[in-house]
Amino acid sequence: MFIDTEKARNFCERLFGAYGFSVDESKIISDVLLRADLYGIESHGIHRLVRYNEEIMSGQVDVKAKTEIVHETGISACLDANKRMGQIVGVEAMKLAIEKAKTSGCGMITVRNSNHYGIASYYTEMAAEHDLIGVSMTNTEAICVPTCGSQAMTGTNAMALAMPAEPYTFSYDISTTVVPRGKLEVYRKNDQPLPDNWGLDANGNPCNDAAIIIDNIIAKAGGGIAPLGGLGTLHGGHKGYGLSIIVDVFSAVISGGLTSNYVNRKPDHTGICHYFMAIDYGIFGDKASIKTGLSKFLQEIRDSRKAEGHNRIYTHGEKEAELMSQRINTQIPVNEKTLQEMRTLAEKYSINFF
Amino acid sequence: MFIDTEKARNFCERLFGAYGFSVDESKIISDVLLRADLYGIESHGIHRLVRYNEEIMSGQVDVKAKTEIVHETGISACLDANKRMGQIVGVEAMKLAIEKAKTSGCGMITVRNSNHYGIASYYTEMAAEHDLIGVSMTNTEAICVPTCGSQAMTGTNAMALAMPAEPYTFSYDISTTVVPRGKLEVYRKNDQPLPDNWGLDANGNPCNDAAIIIDNIIAKAGGGIAPLGGLGTLHGGHKGYGLSIIVDVFSAVISGGLTSNYVNRKPDHTGICHYFMAIDYGIFGDKASIKTGLSKFLQEIRDSRKAEGHNRIYTHGEKEAELMSQRINTQIPVNEKTLQEMRTLAEKYSINFF
Repeated sequence: MFIDTEKARNFCERLFGAYGFSVDESKIISDVLLRADLYGIESHGIHRLVRYNEEIMSGQVDVKAKTEIVHETGISACLDANKRMGQIVGVEAMKLAIEKAKTSGCGMITVRNSNHYGIASYYTEMAAEHDLIGVSMTNTEAICVPTCGSQAMTGTNAMALAMPAEPYTFSYDISTTVVPRGKLEVYRKNDQPLPDNWGLDANGNPCNDAAIIIDNIIAKAGGGIAPLGGLGTLHGGHKGYGLSIIVDVFSAVISGGLTSNYVNRKPDHTGICHYFMAIDYGIFGDKASIKTGLSKFLQEIRDSRKAEGHNRIYTHGEKEAELMSQRINTQIPVNEKTLQEMRTLAEKYSINFF
Repeated sequence: MFIDTEKARNFCERLFGAYGFSVDESKIISDVLLRADLYGIESHGIHRLVRYNEEIMSGQVDVKAKTEIVHETGISACLDANKRMGQIVGVEAMKLAIEKAKTSGCGMITVRNSNHYGIASYYTEMAAEHDLIGVSMTNTEAICVPTCGSQAMTGTNAMALAMPAEPYTFSYDISTTVVPRGKLEVYRKNDQPLPDNWGLDANGNPCNDAAIIIDNIIAKAGGGIAPLGGLGTLHGGHKGYGLSIIVDVFSAVISGGLTSNYVNRKPDHTGICHYFMAIDYGIFGDKASIKTGLSKFLQEIRDSRKAEGHNRIYTHGEKEAELMSQRINTQIPVNEKTLQEMRTLAEKYSINFF
């Protein structure tokens, strides 16, 4: 199924307006959601509406919350989101980072007590649009098991970086787990065994059964997903495990917020933390030369010899930019279940569906 | 075989002095090398002496080079190492980053035209000793093949971060390849097949033969090592591939130096580039509370439930700190070949062996 992109956007704006968000806030949340659908990252797009509805209803998200500046310098700030919607505080924090980068060369903003903020690349690309390097990280509920452990201690913990280049902005956005939870859900739905090295059972043994792992995660019974690099150290699992700690350091530790192992432990408070950084790369030299240098390097990679059976090497952000250019003035895919959820929300909040 | 740590240090200092380095410079190079041996990272320790000898003899390293400041702001600098020894410019650059962090909250230094600088964690831990967060990256000769490619375009590309914590500094130091080249050399020596997902042949097909991969790397015939996450995208190889690009961005692109695919292409110029960053985490809030928060989080991870068959979870930097405390006043391991190489160098430069 496909739906008109602008109609989907207008629906989201009406819905968030009905919750009590201001017009500007509703536009921001909807834009971040739609960007995910335009980029082909459906797990973070309108598919999330029903989950956000639950979070708003349970009080995890406070519709009327305002962001508080806890600490600030010319190049930094620590913000308390006070349970505000992640997208709103995310855009606000990256705007502040951009402002500081333009004035002082760099801006680093750490945020505590926030909520799910959608795709991390939305924020890093805001910085890239201002001809800056953008960095963003966010922790999540613990789902990732440390090397030699059997208990999830860090989250999917996204890490993103964007820098302007021609013809595609370099835009890197990853979870520091080997795969996000959504991937396991697809395997479960298709009743397929998981590839080796993706997950662990409650005792920390390798497990190829998606249902067991997901049920354990929900019940907090132990086990979970392996860090990038897989189980043990043979393929570098300790490297992904460390990356996930680094995300918690910049989002939760320096903001004084909740580390992943405490996130989402209360019915009315997720405590998710983020980090945003913008760097004016002109502090290192001539911006035009540096940008040309990056464009050249990325082009050389795309032009380098392909593996047998492959005819294209992508650089990060290229696939998403291409997909968005196809979808922006036309339609985005949506599955029947999501469409039904949207219909139900429309009825519940007495807003027009389409 | 074991040799006395201090005797090994004195030998290194005599040797670098014989090349024409100043007393201070010789001490710095030797300290970085010895630290690797104390940390159990023998590949980056005195084992490298013979390789450094070749680089000095070939003119890749210029013993008399001075570092030049190409661009500077209150929070940044771009340095040209002018083919100086990597350890000397590394320590100089991190000192500058530390100084800027103490004055302005953060310091970011990018360096071009340098050489191999040893273990990245040496520099990040310098920052941690000053109660700062330290970051360092370095590119290397291309050895890592992009996802869907068959030609190495990025290097082993190390990425390190250290932050003070009790009782162990968090010290993360990885190559962004699934394994460093040294691991392949061990498998070749033992005539063992490589684990799946580590390497590719010249056509970009999976390859389990270490000898083929290493010979191709040396001959620049194609193929190489997989990025962290392995071959293809199933286990997140595109994530490691992007991390290796990020290392090149901060070391080579913003310094205007050589990206990995151009490094070590001339007999008298490696062109290796580095990046150093120090952040005073007091720009986000109370330093004591933040440090306590990190120590608590890392302790919770170490104390979390172990996988069956494991009795300990390490956090990054812990193993190295323990090993160093055992070796610092005693002995470091050295193999017979390295000892023989040291003896030969002693004779060649007419210095006392031990």
